[in-house]
Amino acid sequence: MTPFDDRPRFPRGFRCASRNAGIKASGKDLSLFASDTPAAAAALFTRNHFPGAPIQVGRDLIRAGRLQAVVVNSKVSNVATGEEGIEHARRMGRAAASELGIAPELVLMSSTGVIGRRLPIERIEAGLVGMGAELGDDPMVGAEGIMTTDRVPKAFSLRVGDAVLTGVGKGAGMIAPNLATMLVYFFTDADLPAPELHAVLGEAARDSFQLLSVDTDTSTSDTVAILANGRAGPVDPAEFLAGLRTLSIRMAEAIARDGEGATKLLRARVSGAASDDEARQVARAIVESPLIKTMVYGADPNVGRILMAVGKCFGCHIVPARVTARLQGIEVVRGGAAAPFDDTRVRALLAGDPVDIDVQLGVGQGSARAFGCDLTEGYIHENAAYASS
Amino acid sequence: MTPFDDRPRFPRGFRCASRNAGIKASGKDLSLFASDTPAAAAALFTRNHFPGAPIQVGRDLIRAGRLQAVVVNSKVSNVATGEEGIEHARRMGRAAASELGIAPELVLMSSTGVIGRRLPIERIEAGLVGMGAELGDDPMVGAEGIMTTDRVPKAFSLRVGDAVLTGVGKGAGMIAPNLATMLVYFFTDADLPAPELHAVLGEAARDSFQLLSVDTDTSTSDTVAILANGRAGPVDPAEFLAGLRTLSIRMAEAIARDGEGATKLLRARVSGAASDDEARQVARAIVESPLIKTMVYGADPNVGRILMAVGKCFGCHIVPARVTARLQGIEVVRGGAAAPFDDTRVRALLAGDPVDIDVQLGVGQGSARAFGCDLTEGYIHENAAYASS
Repeated sequence: MTPFDDRPRFPRGFRCASRNAGIKASGKDLSLFASDTPAAAAALFTRNHFPGAPIQVGRDLIRAGRLQAVVVNSKVSNVATGEEGIEHARRMGRAAASELGIAPELVLMSSTGVIGRRLPIERIEAGLVGMGAELGDDPMVGAEGIMTTDRVPKAFSLRVGDAVLTGVGKGAGMIAPNLATMLVYFFTDADLPAPELHAVLGEAARDSFQLLSVDTDTSTSDTVAILANGRAGPVDPAEFLAGLRTLSIRMAEAIARDGEGATKLLRARVSGAASDDEARQVARAIVESPLIKTMVYGADPNVGRILMAVGKCFGCHIVPARVTARLQGIEVVRGGAAAPFDDTRVRALLAGDPVDIDVQLGVGQGSARAFGCDLTEGYIHENAAYASS
Repeated sequence: MTPFDDRPRFPRGFRCASRNAGIKASGKDLSLFASDTPAAAAALFTRNHFPGAPIQVGRDLIRAGRLQAVVVNSKVSNVATGEEGIEHARRMGRAAASELGIAPELVLMSSTGVIGRRLPIERIEAGLVGMGAELGDDPMVGAEGIMTTDRVPKAFSLRVGDAVLTGVGKGAGMIAPNLATMLVYFFTDADLPAPELHAVLGEAARDSFQLLSVDTDTSTSDTVAILANGRAGPVDPAEFLAGLRTLSIRMAEAIARDGEGATKLLRARVSGAASDDEARQVARAIVESPLIKTMVYGADPNVGRILMAVGKCFGCHIVPARVTARLQGIEVVRGGAAAPFDDTRVRALLAGDPVDIDVQLGVGQGSARAFGCDLTEGYIHENAAYASS
């Protein structure tokens, strides 16, 4: 396994900056990521039927398989804003390109925040002026500018051969497959062509962002993009995929743990399913169940809820008598029925972070692991008045 | 439309009683419903792969299409209790039959509450002794004994021709299709054969309980049953179906409004869908979205969330430009984008109960209406420590 760097750092040739452009009352709200040279690129976008304007523009841009910069604002998502929104997304890309002195078609733009509000494009355009001179080598600075309800900025990096791979992301709410709903940007100096980047990005996302759910709600802004500027030369493709998968899972776990109101990471590993697809369904059902999420929050071993969640996967092959389940490693279900367990011990273990639920279905070879978080009063507080805040 | 009775009452020949049998520390926990004579009967049960012991026994019982009584306990659900649970369910039925002096195969039993706990069958057997003498004509008395986290007992009745149709139900949590996850019993003195009862029950449930979701979690105990003792003679089948559908929707709304922690009923009506099935999917996505549910709780018109919820129905035919949406009758989305609206007025209307979200997809003739509730801190409080309470 590729070890993570102690502090996230950028691959050669990548830098970033962030600012308060006056979209939020205070705090960073605008980030710019750039490579010194054009990079091969690929991206995945939300499957929501109402993609934001930046997604609609981005889908066109990414066809060329080439990007040099990413510009992102937080607070307003530029979704459900009609033709004006599309024009604003384009203006945002042009403003960043102009600041960097590069072609507009090399700039991917993202916006995240409230849906249905006009993008304050004038503030973004004004905010970008001079940011090129502020570009620095700390990915955390860029991570700060893309936060919405996130409590911590998220950036990680690791080495793949001679290359560095860095991920910067944000999450917090409206997070469910398909796509798993957040903004994540990967930067690498490895030399990989765009089609190969697209393939490995899809494969790494399959085991991470596509099995990540904070609240079952699929955002209209989700974007996962990767830029590879080739400065470190070629790398072993299998090793690169392994590194990207590792980094993606690390990012997915960080996003889940920092889910709106969450106090801990919840992981569900399902094995022995009839197929990987069925394992994915069951694992998602577990991390998405409000009754399991509140149980995890309360550190309350109400294990019948695990059976309930497995059992509501109507289309899956489930043989109750073959099902076993472990909570933090302790067997709590055997043969489809509640197993006797040390309540005090399980309660103590449930108070930890992360909480792992392992289910063995006993009917096949399919397996999967899904990522989620507990459900707390904090989620209610944040979301009962989000538009107003 | 058949008018509701001011106070719920039983059809001729039906009575009920309820008691505290010591399963709960206080409050009613055991209910007995009985007809003076055997009745034609039909039932629908949960589709969860881990059905409770009463469901497993009940599926066999109902094949004969004949019941005379229903016995229900709350607090412990007798789910995931293995062979012993099955025997306990049978003993519960036999004890009720013995108390009423009828055949055991005429008694349907239900248990609702915590999963994975042994049923205190001895208390139930002791508690049933003498209940036959207490049978009375107020359906609310029976409704009280089947409550778990419900705040109010639920019973409604209406007339169909010369017959009376009465529904008694409980809900509160772990409520999602399939089945829509609660206990509901219908009693009527109309004369209808079991196969016809089964057909109308399925049809009425389709527009009510199958589109009811408190928390997307499908319980392991759900049961909807109907008993028809024929005392009022034949009724018009279409009129009976209309009455049963009306009563089912009323009960679904009552269960949704009394969802765990809920402060109000949320209804989503979707029209203009490519098919009724797609309308059902979209309507469910709206009432099940945590971000919509918290928005309704906070009376905060974050209308982008409506588009998000519609847009995450990946398999449905959605043409963004044709989508319009109304919140409490006020247009908030037009042509797939946020429409200008009077924020103060919508905010005031959102504070009401129920909250209605109407979505017109503009691509076909399919329509549906789903029932849910808001999501509040109360849901978290109730469920973070349910097993312990």
